[in-house]
Amino acid sequence: MIVVLAGGVGAAKFLEGLAAVMPPDEIAVICNTGDDAAFHGLHVSPDLDTVLYTLAGMVDRERGWGIAGDTFGCLESLAFLGKQTWFQLGDRDLATHLARTERLRQGATLSEVTEELRRALGVACRILPMSDGFARTRLRTTAGWLALQEYFVKLRQEPEVLEVDFTAAASCRPAPGVLAAIQEAAGVIVAPSNPILSIGPILAVTGMREALRATAAPVAAISPIVGGRALKGPADRILASLGLGSSAAAVAELYRDFLDVFVLDRSDVHLLDEIQEKGIRAVATETVMNSPEAKQQLARTVLQELAAKRASCSR
Amino acid sequence: MIVVLAGGVGAAKFLEGLAAVMPPDEIAVICNTGDDAAFHGLHVSPDLDTVLYTLAGMVDRERGWGIAGDTFGCLESLAFLGKQTWFQLGDRDLATHLARTERLRQGATLSEVTEELRRALGVACRILPMSDGFARTRLRTTAGWLALQEYFVKLRQEPEVLEVDFTAAASCRPAPGVLAAIQEAAGVIVAPSNPILSIGPILAVTGMREALRATAAPVAAISPIVGGRALKGPADRILASLGLGSSAAAVAELYRDFLDVFVLDRSDVHLLDEIQEKGIRAVATETVMNSPEAKQQLARTVLQELAAKRASCSR
Repeated sequence: MIVVLAGGVGAAKFLEGLAAVMPPDEIAVICNTGDDAAFHGLHVSPDLDTVLYTLAGMVDRERGWGIAGDTFGCLESLAFLGKQTWFQLGDRDLATHLARTERLRQGATLSEVTEELRRALGVACRILPMSDGFARTRLRTTAGWLALQEYFVKLRQEPEVLEVDFTAAASCRPAPGVLAAIQEAAGVIVAPSNPILSIGPILAVTGMREALRATAAPVAAISPIVGGRALKGPADRILASLGLGSSAAAVAELYRDFLDVFVLDRSDVHLLDEIQEKGIRAVATETVMNSPEAKQQLARTVLQELAAKRASCSR
Repeated sequence: MIVVLAGGVGAAKFLEGLAAVMPPDEIAVICNTGDDAAFHGLHVSPDLDTVLYTLAGMVDRERGWGIAGDTFGCLESLAFLGKQTWFQLGDRDLATHLARTERLRQGATLSEVTEELRRALGVACRILPMSDGFARTRLRTTAGWLALQEYFVKLRQEPEVLEVDFTAAASCRPAPGVLAAIQEAAGVIVAPSNPILSIGPILAVTGMREALRATAAPVAAISPIVGGRALKGPADRILASLGLGSSAAAVAELYRDFLDVFVLDRSDVHLLDEIQEKGIRAVATETVMNSPEAKQQLARTVLQELAAKRASCSR
């Protein structure tokens, strides 16, 4: 089993490549749920859905999230009824949230519901929420304390992030199977997701960092920062405003206690020494995933690095 | 105030006519909620919605219910997820159920939510659910005990109805304003709705029949049965299978204890004597509402009858 710690869009693109170069049923995804939120009484899990829709081949490729060709009749009508509609919910997408919410209200866990959705959508990879608990991330910003989607969608990531509160995640236990997957993995990959907002909550869940440090499996991470810039989203600005610096090296530093291999973009080749000095093997390659081939090539590179690490450790 | 006891499609058509021939804000609708049901965790109130959508001018005229031009993306996706989708829910229609369900979960009453929806949709008539309580009708049929929508939609009214259980409605109190509206009305009209399934639950609510008997206002009813046949739905077959006969006179008999005027179709003119013998004034006119003019003419006829009754009583 290869275990992937995943946020949303960036992770989903990487997972597409990975599932194309190895048996997808040997991939276990541990997915961030710190973004989860309630809209119109429905439980929305943005990162789980992005991963599910992408692996099911139904994602809207232009946006990176939601369902291709979806309509927005319900959202338009909610706006007409005077409801807040800054969080975009397509009509087909709504079915997922309705099904999830109804099952949760019936007493099912988020893990169980995610497994049901995975099967219904025909996704072969195992998909595990990081926790079945309430693990919502909160942000202290120049616009006050915000829930993640308020910052991300409603305020378009415009306020400066001053502090990130993972208290909720830190009081959550990992979902069933999560720690075992890490312990028994042949390799662990931290996807190229926002290291603070997407991977941060996963690492904050009780026992998660300890499991990553303790596993015999090599752990690799892919930098979401290329040339000091996030390819998508506010990761660079958040790293900077939290005083961590905004280079790929700052990401490696965040994962330093459990990381064996760091894959960064070839445009950041000048950072190789800085990262290797942390005791982490650093590899520069093409990390921008603009085509199926690029996704698969990146996946192959990471798998090769993990295999090499396993070989060197067992010698 | 003119008070109208209303079911779904037939009542909504009549209300359109009524609202065109008198100030709509002087109409109070007491609407059946015995059809209410939960689908995908959402509270659906079919008759309230049909009345609201019709009076808001947004109803799908061909079907008589739902929203004109609505799409069904969410329902298709729910089917894809393996959910039961025999109850048709359009994408725009869903917004109503989402808004209602969220407000109910927040602790609002059905009356309060209905008032919010009425305002948002720009409907001038006052719309009151018969009760804020759980008043679901159950049917004993040749296919066993069924909830109303199971009988009506899922099984397409095919099983024979052997018994109708209003126990739930009978243990409910009228919604705030309902009894006062009947007491203070200038006239009460029982819309041409199914007398068993749509008007039956309203009459079963605690104190409702007593209020109709006690009010000083004249009470008129319009027959939904024309020439021994229901214009729409299974009213004729249910009246027959319950042993009540299936003529318009059977409907008058059901309302006999509070009825002053019974308006029936001119094709049923031969029933006038039979009904007048019950001590009810009977009037034969065109009751089939195939055009705006027909709806308005029927409304005018009923209002004139109520006015005449008031004049004769005050003499």
